[in-house]
Amino acid sequence: MDAPLDLVIFGGAGDLSWRKLLPALYMAHVHERLPRDTRIIGIGRHGWDRQAYVDFVDRSARTVMADAFQNEAWTAFLARLDFVSMDATEAAGYARLAPCCRPGSTKVFYLATAPGLFAQICGRLHEAGLIDPQARVVLEKPLGHDLSSARAINEAVACYFDERQVYRIDHYLGKETVQNLMVLRFGNAIFEPLWRAPHIQSVQITVAETVGVGTRAGFYDQTGALRDMVQNHLLQLLCIVAMEPPISLDPDDVRDEKLKVLRSLCRMDLHDVRQDTVRGQYSAGVVEGQAVTGYCQESGVPAASGTETFVALRAQVRNARWAGVPFFLRTGKRLPQRRSDIIIDYADPPFSIFADQRDAPHANRLVISLQPEESIELQMMAKEPGSGMKLRPAFLKLDLQSAFSERRAEAYERLLVDVIKGRLTHFMRRDELEAAWQWIDPILEAWQQLGEQPHPYPAGSWGPIGASALLARAPLRGAEAP
Amino acid sequence: MDAPLDLVIFGGAGDLSWRKLLPALYMAHVHERLPRDTRIIGIGRHGWDRQAYVDFVDRSARTVMADAFQNEAWTAFLARLDFVSMDATEAAGYARLAPCCRPGSTKVFYLATAPGLFAQICGRLHEAGLIDPQARVVLEKPLGHDLSSARAINEAVACYFDERQVYRIDHYLGKETVQNLMVLRFGNAIFEPLWRAPHIQSVQITVAETVGVGTRAGFYDQTGALRDMVQNHLLQLLCIVAMEPPISLDPDDVRDEKLKVLRSLCRMDLHDVRQDTVRGQYSAGVVEGQAVTGYCQESGVPAASGTETFVALRAQVRNARWAGVPFFLRTGKRLPQRRSDIIIDYADPPFSIFADQRDAPHANRLVISLQPEESIELQMMAKEPGSGMKLRPAFLKLDLQSAFSERRAEAYERLLVDVIKGRLTHFMRRDELEAAWQWIDPILEAWQQLGEQPHPYPAGSWGPIGASALLARAPLRGAEAP
Repeated sequence: MDAPLDLVIFGGAGDLSWRKLLPALYMAHVHERLPRDTRIIGIGRHGWDRQAYVDFVDRSARTVMADAFQNEAWTAFLARLDFVSMDATEAAGYARLAPCCRPGSTKVFYLATAPGLFAQICGRLHEAGLIDPQARVVLEKPLGHDLSSARAINEAVACYFDERQVYRIDHYLGKETVQNLMVLRFGNAIFEPLWRAPHIQSVQITVAETVGVGTRAGFYDQTGALRDMVQNHLLQLLCIVAMEPPISLDPDDVRDEKLKVLRSLCRMDLHDVRQDTVRGQYSAGVVEGQAVTGYCQESGVPAASGTETFVALRAQVRNARWAGVPFFLRTGKRLPQRRSDIIIDYADPPFSIFADQRDAPHANRLVISLQPEESIELQMMAKEPGSGMKLRPAFLKLDLQSAFSERRAEAYERLLVDVIKGRLTHFMRRDELEAAWQWIDPILEAWQQLGEQPHPYPAGSWGPIGASALLARAPLRGAEAP
Repeated sequence: MDAPLDLVIFGGAGDLSWRKLLPALYMAHVHERLPRDTRIIGIGRHGWDRQAYVDFVDRSARTVMADAFQNEAWTAFLARLDFVSMDATEAAGYARLAPCCRPGSTKVFYLATAPGLFAQICGRLHEAGLIDPQARVVLEKPLGHDLSSARAINEAVACYFDERQVYRIDHYLGKETVQNLMVLRFGNAIFEPLWRAPHIQSVQITVAETVGVGTRAGFYDQTGALRDMVQNHLLQLLCIVAMEPPISLDPDDVRDEKLKVLRSLCRMDLHDVRQDTVRGQYSAGVVEGQAVTGYCQESGVPAASGTETFVALRAQVRNARWAGVPFFLRTGKRLPQRRSDIIIDYADPPFSIFADQRDAPHANRLVISLQPEESIELQMMAKEPGSGMKLRPAFLKLDLQSAFSERRAEAYERLLVDVIKGRLTHFMRRDELEAAWQWIDPILEAWQQLGEQPHPYPAGSWGPIGASALLARAPLRGAEAP
């Protein structure tokens, strides 16, 4: 933590910056997680000087901090800011940026811009002599819209940065509960022996949003839920659930295991896609008591858009641990609740001596909630008080908010500190990203080939009927297993 | 529940009756667990009439009921009472008892007397024609002081009652958490596969009392902790922890499995007893802030008494499931806390990728508390909030008191209702009782042969030093395993 830090944010006045990055950096500043000599240099085309940027951050970022705001700390934090007004595609600006980056400092380039600019920015940074072996680059999603575009981005970045300098960020990997899932699995003796077929019957991963497309229509309509959420967040969660124990916590040991999971995903053909995926698009409805418009009526969305705002699919991990265990992935906009969770359904006991348990499914279920609260809950059967031996579900709950009194950093703060400390474990490696696209591409292609409109679902519902049917279908066993 | 019930309590004015049985019956009455037409007939030598007994119960039992007391219900309960003044050893009394027991009623004879009277009472009941095929007899501990005396009692009782009519009561088996342990094990899919060596490293069963010998010196000094507590309560708990899944909840299916555990207990020879048992006797000390006297200074105890008030021992269950897993049993009077629990220590994960876990024992521990509160708690490792992957123990807790809103009956109430309903599952069968003595007898004999005084321990401590040493010794593995 001794070297000074120059943290350069391309897109320094963008939404991500003021909503997430700058508040996260401020929290890291307050809790002395930043090197003493840290400067944060915003980059943008606004023609602002430093003071104009400071004023902008003071107006915008400050509004999202609520209780965390402290006048003195905030003033000290603002003093760390600088701004370089430039067009990121033109060499001229880099000549002005270069002197802002101090010799001997650790340089972190956070590319919070459209990915189309990544290659050019890296090239220009190189030309300006700003990339030394200690420099790091942070890449925000979307990293491509298919395998070939993702490869192109990765290749371009690789011309200027070694893989060990590249931090592909997925903020789901920064969530406390997701990291806790690794501890749960590998730090305890009671989970890992049963963490496999046939002890686990199915895994459900849900990322449900109540929001609609909002102001992102232009981008989103070109993208859809599969690319926007499944390819990154949901597959990353699936990897953490399904991976083998890594031989250590070193970044490549962990990422090797995640890569193996992605490579074990059963590639879907046209038949599989028809049978095991459901595309949906929200129509008008009511969410959280508010009447809302349908997706095709949103501003900026073509009236006949065929983009999906919901996906449910059944994935299979073909390896010794998971063969026959379905992984249900589900994500959508305008769903009834904002809720992200991972549900591990254990198989039923092989036989029950308790009469009332014979038809009751899911004696045991582990629920790992990421949103809105982070918690871990184990459902088990307990005895109903009284004479007789009647069963009833009970919950062993680990409420992370109250179990640990420490402040719990937001995902972005934790991941930014990881970047500064040079810890790559919770970032995606190039081959992981590409393996994810390799599995996603055939689904996209099959959908195109099938040429069907997504199934409409009323805003405020849990997606098209077919999605529940997918989940209700018997788990993969015997004949259906690969 | 249609047949009228005549419940006859021998020792109807004794401590057990007014402290436990009558309050339990009152609760069963309030909650309509008794047959509508129930009469409770106290037997004693007091020369009382019915009203004198009612007055006695009203004065005594009422005091232990606290919140449960309701005037109207209590009056209705007292109306169920009757009393027969008689000497239980003489035929004359039974002639007066007979007409109190109605033709066609279910007759339950609760023998809350010294066990020396059991044979005679049963014989007299038989002579008086009171034992029909529906009659039941409830036997209170102590059922003998060694194998041969226990056999003698059982044989005498068996002359008049079939085994299916005999309810040997151990109120530990009536505790909600103990019964819950069976549900935990056999109603869930997540415990049973790991409920064995090598996944479980050791089991500790503790029944700790803060009280001293009190008014029981005469009996206790002839008995000691091994007979008074280990032979019944602790071994019964061990059976519930260790038994194989029964093929059903039918009484004999459950008791067959418990018997197998008792028969699998490794019989101790002189060497084993010296190595794996610790006898203690409390000396003067301080318990719960009160200075208390030593055992040999208690009224009614010989000044040079060699009776143990504390036992710790290491038992082995020699079968495929448990070979090599030590079962530590521990009980004593004048210990620092009143506490009964069963602790299941899981083996450590075979390898830890978390640096800070490498020396930390007991990642996982299941604590089943019977007293003072009933609860089930699972200790596991969770991630410390913040950057990095530091581990910290956390607790998943199932608080039975608050998890279930229903009233939770006391052990005696639950067991009395079982007797009335004819449910034998939670009562000891003759062969179980004798198998327990079969394992206890060699320990008693070895102690006698060794001729050592019990180790003194100050009242208010956790017993002699040797007891902790026993626990601290490496678990049975490899060479030491049978």
